[in-house]
Amino acid sequence: MIAAESTGTATKGFATHSPDAKFEPFEFTRRAVGPHDILIDIEYAGICHSDIHQAKNEWKDSMPTSYPLVPGHEIVGRVSQIGGEVTKFKVGDIAGIGCFIDSCRECASCKSGQEQFCVKQAAYTYNGTEMDRVTKTYGGYSNKYVIDENYALKVKAEGDLSGVAPLMCAGITTYSPLKRFNVGPGKKVGIVGLGGLGHMGVKIAKAMGAEVTIFSTSPSKEADAKALGADHFVVTKDPANLAPLTGTFNMILDTVSADHDVNPYLNLLGLNGAMVVVGVPPSPNTIHALSLIFGNKTLSGSLIGGIPETQEMLDFCAEHNITSDVEVIDPSRIEEAYDRTVKADVRYRFVIDMGAD
Amino acid sequence: MIAAESTGTATKGFATHSPDAKFEPFEFTRRAVGPHDILIDIEYAGICHSDIHQAKNEWKDSMPTSYPLVPGHEIVGRVSQIGGEVTKFKVGDIAGIGCFIDSCRECASCKSGQEQFCVKQAAYTYNGTEMDRVTKTYGGYSNKYVIDENYALKVKAEGDLSGVAPLMCAGITTYSPLKRFNVGPGKKVGIVGLGGLGHMGVKIAKAMGAEVTIFSTSPSKEADAKALGADHFVVTKDPANLAPLTGTFNMILDTVSADHDVNPYLNLLGLNGAMVVVGVPPSPNTIHALSLIFGNKTLSGSLIGGIPETQEMLDFCAEHNITSDVEVIDPSRIEEAYDRTVKADVRYRFVIDMGAD
Repeated sequence: MIAAESTGTATKGFATHSPDAKFEPFEFTRRAVGPHDILIDIEYAGICHSDIHQAKNEWKDSMPTSYPLVPGHEIVGRVSQIGGEVTKFKVGDIAGIGCFIDSCRECASCKSGQEQFCVKQAAYTYNGTEMDRVTKTYGGYSNKYVIDENYALKVKAEGDLSGVAPLMCAGITTYSPLKRFNVGPGKKVGIVGLGGLGHMGVKIAKAMGAEVTIFSTSPSKEADAKALGADHFVVTKDPANLAPLTGTFNMILDTVSADHDVNPYLNLLGLNGAMVVVGVPPSPNTIHALSLIFGNKTLSGSLIGGIPETQEMLDFCAEHNITSDVEVIDPSRIEEAYDRTVKADVRYRFVIDMGAD
Repeated sequence: MIAAESTGTATKGFATHSPDAKFEPFEFTRRAVGPHDILIDIEYAGICHSDIHQAKNEWKDSMPTSYPLVPGHEIVGRVSQIGGEVTKFKVGDIAGIGCFIDSCRECASCKSGQEQFCVKQAAYTYNGTEMDRVTKTYGGYSNKYVIDENYALKVKAEGDLSGVAPLMCAGITTYSPLKRFNVGPGKKVGIVGLGGLGHMGVKIAKAMGAEVTIFSTSPSKEADAKALGADHFVVTKDPANLAPLTGTFNMILDTVSADHDVNPYLNLLGLNGAMVVVGVPPSPNTIHALSLIFGNKTLSGSLIGGIPETQEMLDFCAEHNITSDVEVIDPSRIEEAYDRTVKADVRYRFVIDMGAD
């Protein structure tokens, strides 16, 4: 436990300074621990595909990258200091941080626990600003984070925490729509894509009691899908594999971020069925009204989750012993991990060991 | 009251014999009244836009027209005879018929009261077959209908029934999605298009307690919209009219069957908002995942409603004194009514007086 200095919290991280630059050690200062803050000594930070897009400035106009960039919004660590007014955490607790670290706290979204949709825009964990709109945020590829206790998550899991880090983004991204569309016993759920998001989706949907089918373009993933708990595995490259499943799914969670046609999956939905997209392919889809009208079908989107639901997800995962399947790396291997993530050569999430444990 | 003959029920209707032919008197025989059947002396039959598409064979491949065609699936009349096992109706009751007159009664859709999605396909009220898949069905542009009591609706309304007929299709088409998406007090609802469907949508949404905005391309409809109960009227031809409404609607019901872009309306939905399409434009829409993901938004479709919900809608409309605004015509004016309906020159539904009252 290292005390924060009164003028701030000295932090060591890894930053990239341009779209093509390698990550390098980067020292910066977070704020001093205020009355409502906790200081987290970061143990693990997951590598989300968003980190890669942001590091390479691939979202130019919609979310330009402010360099130096310290990515990371799948963070888990141990509380090493608390402010005088803190009530939720004590020193030694395990805590997590997801995609945002503050929000306006006053708008309808914030008041309803959906801070990810704060009308003033939440303070993103990295490549954003605090709500003062001045102080730049740096992410979890670092050894410390100072955060208001109300935006940190309590982690009940014990033992190895590396698989807990990805729950903060991949976990909530899949849990929220599965919960919203009442996935449970007796429900047939399809998960499109078996990557970082999809592998969390199958674990959570199974724990909710559903019968789960994985849709994948890669026949080689069948054994993994079954090992993860999937009841069925369907290779989507041959449309003949989909035909017998027409009209049989209550809910389909589409985790694919590459361009693809959603219509074959709408066709697999049964009466009042819902398909939810959580990936963002570059190109739009073409949807005919009849594809939704016959069967009273729904196409929805879902974006991570608010603090209350993220906490609910973490508690659910702890109760069901759900963590992400991870490959733990040293910070020196971030570039290699990025390259392999882009090639989908990871089962199923890289997590950086920030060395605090 | 005319007794059915033992060999069948002599019926007089109006049929068209080809896509371009005029309607002519047409005599045919419906089945004799069986133990579970009721005979309805038809008083009014609404003219639904579907009737026109079907009469002109405009749905060629998906639903080819079988001539001679007697359209009409917005039917109201009085029960003039009942079978020996009938329990729901007595002679003299007012009864309605909607878009289908039978279904398999055994599939999950039928058992859950969503017979419109019967896996064996419901028996459509006209241009279909009975569940024997042999006996051709003729619609409500006629003086009598023989129907199983379980597929007829009870009408509690008294007085002029002309405005009740359109509830059987236009009423349930709008009521079902408004109900499904929990429209009620404190909710902001948009209705896109002020035609036969839209004018029912505003009446029902208002009766449910919502604040209702009509979106229309026709500035001339503002006075009507307000008279129908709409709180606000927005002319959609100028995008500047939509901008201030961004993110403010809980639910938007899109009743337009002409090609149009749904994206400006998705943009008007607030957090967890839903847009439901009930019209079927010829061309598909282009939807980007981000349009649904930011705000956890939903795009759904809806097709009429099952028997239980149609009955619920009729009871709701009776309780709130809701009927369709209609222009009643004699059967000799069907062609004129079709032409004016295609030009949207009707406020808001033509209803044929079948002369039984």
